[in-house]
Amino acid sequence: MRIAIVGAGALGLYYGAQLQRSGGDVHFLLRRDYAAICADGLRVESVDGDFHLPKIHGYSRSEEIGIVDLVLIGLKTFANAQMVGLVRPLVGPQTVLLTLQNGLGNEDCLAAAFAPEQIMGGIAFLCANRGAPGTVRHLGEGRIRLGEFCGGLSSRAEKLAALFTAAGVPCQAVADLNRARWEKLVWNIPFNGLCALTGKDVTELLADHCVRAEVVALMTEVVAAGNAQGLTEPIDPDRFIPRLIEMTDKMDHYRPSMMLDRLAGQPLELESIYALPLRAAGQKGVSLPRTAFLHALLSLGEKAHLATAVK
Amino acid sequence: MRIAIVGAGALGLYYGAQLQRSGGDVHFLLRRDYAAICADGLRVESVDGDFHLPKIHGYSRSEEIGIVDLVLIGLKTFANAQMVGLVRPLVGPQTVLLTLQNGLGNEDCLAAAFAPEQIMGGIAFLCANRGAPGTVRHLGEGRIRLGEFCGGLSSRAEKLAALFTAAGVPCQAVADLNRARWEKLVWNIPFNGLCALTGKDVTELLADHCVRAEVVALMTEVVAAGNAQGLTEPIDPDRFIPRLIEMTDKMDHYRPSMMLDRLAGQPLELESIYALPLRAAGQKGVSLPRTAFLHALLSLGEKAHLATAVK
Repeated sequence: MRIAIVGAGALGLYYGAQLQRSGGDVHFLLRRDYAAICADGLRVESVDGDFHLPKIHGYSRSEEIGIVDLVLIGLKTFANAQMVGLVRPLVGPQTVLLTLQNGLGNEDCLAAAFAPEQIMGGIAFLCANRGAPGTVRHLGEGRIRLGEFCGGLSSRAEKLAALFTAAGVPCQAVADLNRARWEKLVWNIPFNGLCALTGKDVTELLADHCVRAEVVALMTEVVAAGNAQGLTEPIDPDRFIPRLIEMTDKMDHYRPSMMLDRLAGQPLELESIYALPLRAAGQKGVSLPRTAFLHALLSLGEKAHLATAVK
Repeated sequence: MRIAIVGAGALGLYYGAQLQRSGGDVHFLLRRDYAAICADGLRVESVDGDFHLPKIHGYSRSEEIGIVDLVLIGLKTFANAQMVGLVRPLVGPQTVLLTLQNGLGNEDCLAAAFAPEQIMGGIAFLCANRGAPGTVRHLGEGRIRLGEFCGGLSSRAEKLAALFTAAGVPCQAVADLNRARWEKLVWNIPFNGLCALTGKDVTELLADHCVRAEVVALMTEVVAAGNAQGLTEPIDPDRFIPRLIEMTDKMDHYRPSMMLDRLAGQPLELESIYALPLRAAGQKGVSLPRTAFLHALLSLGEKAHLATAVK
């Protein structure tokens, strides 16, 4: 199985490395890390043990990779306007497209150009970030839940899950991809935004009892919005939210990707993590006051940042 | 009429200067500006024309002032724990205490130590800040609405309003002080907090259409909370909120006091402007999600600031 990795940030590099390490035929579309990886390979500094892949198939253009069996997409969603162009040269009639991007709207973006049956989506629970060029740091977690864009539990999803699991990435096939996406938003909406806005990590936020209560209130809003989307089974806030909080309490000063993006002066993934979920909620008549408020504050900083960057 | 000014920040200095300029017998309790004002007097740089009062009765201790007819209180509310001690030496049986401080709880704080009939409160619509020691800058507005802590329209309030008005400070006596306080909160809760949190002035905030919508949403919350307090006449959000927005649109890059406090590394008036209004709303079963969220974010910065200050 030929696999292409598009969007080789922390997520793409880490999963690509795991797949190659377990024998996969992996081809990386690279940008920032192209020179470093082609020269010295890819280094993974992981809580599960460091390893080094001396030889990587690295490319700077998708055309050089050609058609593959699986495209694994880890692009930042603010680059989604480029996604179809980057992916198209990799796609034949049998190619499966798997987006592991954050938030909503990514599968729809692919569906504008490719057959819906070719599209799958997944949710990655991965604490990782990029080190120096050629290095990715894996800080914890890593499991994936994936499913069909068209819905239902497919044998293809089961096989893909088995492939990841065999590569050391615990992976579960799910029947309701949309439900899994909303479950992930229940974490992303409070923590990505609050950390980016305040410059505090998850541990610092949860240490403040007022902010902790607001995190729970944000989560409660998102669960209500998700449950209005006709999920196969509703998310139970009384079980799910305490579990997420408990999980986050164990993350030692973790800085979510959006916080790192803001600190690095990058744009934020506001469309997929905030704007589209807010729109989906609004269409079902569910109002998310705290989420809307947080989104507005993040947008303001975004424009300010962009204005500064332009100067 | 002997008048003492306690809390000679921008507000106390400006109103004290206007009262003295029009012939009032004004005595200022000073701290930061004591040396400068005793040496060179008080300079007011005003949109209505600059003026200078070469001779000011300045004191560093209330005991030196002694009993007065009117105490005008402009202390920052985070200093309210010191308020009774500062005011007590000024108060005889006929003394009127007029607090022009922000938010809720200030009259109650005085009522713990003085007869409720001696207490009045007022709302100042004043754009002013401090310049170098001995200088106060008046950027616009200035009008006051004042009333009795015990409620009702008194002839004493009418006389005091006439005194201010004669001193060039448009002033209106109101029957329902609590209603006037809530009306002011409808402005303070969005703008003080958002400006302090984001570091943007009112003009920058209102230029962003998402944030503008959130300002209106915050105002709508506060009107609902105010209207649950048994006001003599409810605040009509459809008339009042557009009027406040229109008024603020005319403020040219105004920075509210809480923003200046944060920039100066001072504590914020969170108790009187957020915590007490949130509590009053909660007691009436009204929930203010955006206000609570904003308060939590401001508190977080506050503790971070205090932690930094301690280091």
